[in-house]
Amino acid sequence: MTIKAANEECLARIQDGTAVWVDIRTARDVLPDLADRTVFHAGPPVTWKNMCGPMRGAIIGASMFEGWAKTADEAVAIAEQGQLKFHSGHDHHAIGPMSGIITPSMQVNVVRNDRFGIDTHSTLYMGIGKVLRHGAYDETVMQKLRWMNYELAPLLRRAVQQAGGIDIKSIVAQAVQMGDEMHNRNKASNVLLLTALAPHLVATGERSDVVRALQFIDQAGHFVLNLVMAGCKGILDAANGIPDATIVTAIARNGCETGIRVSGTGDRWFTAPAPMIEGVYFPGFGPADANPDLGDSSITETIGLGSMAMAGAPAVVEYVGGTPEFAVDTTMKMYEITAAEHKTFKLPSLRFRGTPLGIDIRKVVKTGITPVINTGIACKRAGVGQIGAGLTAVPMQCFERALEAFAAARTSTPV
Amino acid sequence: MTIKAANEECLARIQDGTAVWVDIRTARDVLPDLADRTVFHAGPPVTWKNMCGPMRGAIIGASMFEGWAKTADEAVAIAEQGQLKFHSGHDHHAIGPMSGIITPSMQVNVVRNDRFGIDTHSTLYMGIGKVLRHGAYDETVMQKLRWMNYELAPLLRRAVQQAGGIDIKSIVAQAVQMGDEMHNRNKASNVLLLTALAPHLVATGERSDVVRALQFIDQAGHFVLNLVMAGCKGILDAANGIPDATIVTAIARNGCETGIRVSGTGDRWFTAPAPMIEGVYFPGFGPADANPDLGDSSITETIGLGSMAMAGAPAVVEYVGGTPEFAVDTTMKMYEITAAEHKTFKLPSLRFRGTPLGIDIRKVVKTGITPVINTGIACKRAGVGQIGAGLTAVPMQCFERALEAFAAARTSTPV
Repeated sequence: MTIKAANEECLARIQDGTAVWVDIRTARDVLPDLADRTVFHAGPPVTWKNMCGPMRGAIIGASMFEGWAKTADEAVAIAEQGQLKFHSGHDHHAIGPMSGIITPSMQVNVVRNDRFGIDTHSTLYMGIGKVLRHGAYDETVMQKLRWMNYELAPLLRRAVQQAGGIDIKSIVAQAVQMGDEMHNRNKASNVLLLTALAPHLVATGERSDVVRALQFIDQAGHFVLNLVMAGCKGILDAANGIPDATIVTAIARNGCETGIRVSGTGDRWFTAPAPMIEGVYFPGFGPADANPDLGDSSITETIGLGSMAMAGAPAVVEYVGGTPEFAVDTTMKMYEITAAEHKTFKLPSLRFRGTPLGIDIRKVVKTGITPVINTGIACKRAGVGQIGAGLTAVPMQCFERALEAFAAARTSTPV
Repeated sequence: MTIKAANEECLARIQDGTAVWVDIRTARDVLPDLADRTVFHAGPPVTWKNMCGPMRGAIIGASMFEGWAKTADEAVAIAEQGQLKFHSGHDHHAIGPMSGIITPSMQVNVVRNDRFGIDTHSTLYMGIGKVLRHGAYDETVMQKLRWMNYELAPLLRRAVQQAGGIDIKSIVAQAVQMGDEMHNRNKASNVLLLTALAPHLVATGERSDVVRALQFIDQAGHFVLNLVMAGCKGILDAANGIPDATIVTAIARNGCETGIRVSGTGDRWFTAPAPMIEGVYFPGFGPADANPDLGDSSITETIGLGSMAMAGAPAVVEYVGGTPEFAVDTTMKMYEITAAEHKTFKLPSLRFRGTPLGIDIRKVVKTGITPVINTGIACKRAGVGQIGAGLTAVPMQCFERALEAFAAARTSTPV
């Protein structure tokens, strides 16, 4: 196949993919590779030795949640002794923001790309601040985790089932026209999700539980994010593994390395050291406290959201820094490295132009422009949590390495 | 007082006003002038003889709802015989979109400007299409009206009271940053309202009633509008009646005439024939079916929303016509006739500049630019309902007459 034809097939699959929140399940029941003492994490594969503080913190919390350890010290000990197995969630239809830790007893969202028969899984969003995904694991975090897992999740499950599924792609399409870029600004999408869910929650839940759930989803602010992430991955996974396609199908960071996947080279990761983030810090924190770029949430940029859709979300600059003009400039720059425009996600401020879609590794290398990422900043010390938000970029090395590998695999035709 | 000082006082009162939805009450209990067989209507005062089709239609429906008439013919007869009294709602702390009909048995929202101790009242929003405010009164309309009045309203009342009031001004401030201009685009504000209301609905209502209420508010799309209108009026009424102030405090249309009020001349109306609307028609309708400009909803423009805030709501052009650039141009033009910028309603697309606030009759007359209005189009025949949406402008005559009267009253100092 020519690169052109391969990319067209790849892009068509991304455009046509669907994302419907169909269920919430216990992770071990839907993720067969998530055996006991197995941990899925964000980004490309990484060993305990190389893991960053927040990822270690989240694993400590998850180990206590699972009962594998009683204390943080015990959790560190079993990890150091090699008693835990670590896998990239990306290799197993799973995804999570920041450390992206998923262990067998956790409840996970099931988001379906029914056009291509792919289910993708993500944990439930816990809120901002001191939360597991940022490596916090004190008793308040553990209590919240247990409430979400054993009380909130069953309630949401009944509602989602009664609703016959909730169309996440449709919510994203509306929210992109309401100032969300879907990575750090999810204000519209979160209330749209709540609006879709509320009648079914009411119909299936106990009054006091429903009140608490509604208030939690509203106050968490970004509850929709983990569903959107699973939706993005399910759509992009359907477009992965097309020989000769040069479109990026995943961008993910484990806090130590940033990695990308390219459709033509399938599941192989092309990595480089994770960069730091330029951003706005919460009071009391600064760059010296910051962890390098972390998390799977850059799957939003991979599908034409996040920084790609920033022109439609000028208010996000209040959170990640910059000016409204910078937001427009960022999107405009991203059109230079993408192969198409999204036919469902449209930016009113750019005359309803589709968001930049399909990062082409050839264009990145040729222009020297790498994808921008809007992201949260985790404290590099385990146990602290989120300390800010800002902007970073995927290292050029990832694309150079990917292009080399792509060219090497494609001996017959010049790139 | 100098005009400058008077306008500053007027603008400060508008900026500082509040709008909290505190209650729902039966109209006769909170509107002492709304006696039996009395009807409040939109816009400046108008007689039955001069009333447009949709306003007559709404009065027919309201007369049957009140039991004053059994049939449409009977309703017309009692109106023609002078058995009904008509008052402009604006003169009685009441407001309504389109025909704006309020009769004694109707449930009305109570929206409080607690900074200045003013309660303003509006009917509950019925949805789009065939509805009372557009002059429709068939049995489906009457049934819906009864359900809203006797089932939905009491449910909402308990929720609003349990919430301790819902801050409408805060919802507007958020929604203006989410693509709403608050007159014809209320997508974000409506779901934000629903999000604020939902837990209290659940806590106080019966399950099946709550489900129905949540679905109705979501599907009605603009349920929030009537609350916003009451909020705008309550804030502007507090700024009315300041001698020497040249700021417009009301714009309202009765479908026959458009009228404005100016702070310095108090409750006096300055009117001109209501213009037609340039717009987008629903299938099957065209300009020949259209009624001239109608309704109190232009109170949103009066406070710096609607067309004034259009730069932040490019998606509204899909509804009222035009291009996203036109939306920005409209707001920019409105800065030329306003005296200030809103300190709470900010437009991300204009670098968080406040919306144009305080229409100054001197600037309108001097520049020849009159305020644009984003609005729905009613069918001129009673009983049909909404047939489109579009843009119009307040006639220049209103401002010329207001300025003449203002100057005449102010003999000592030149305008």
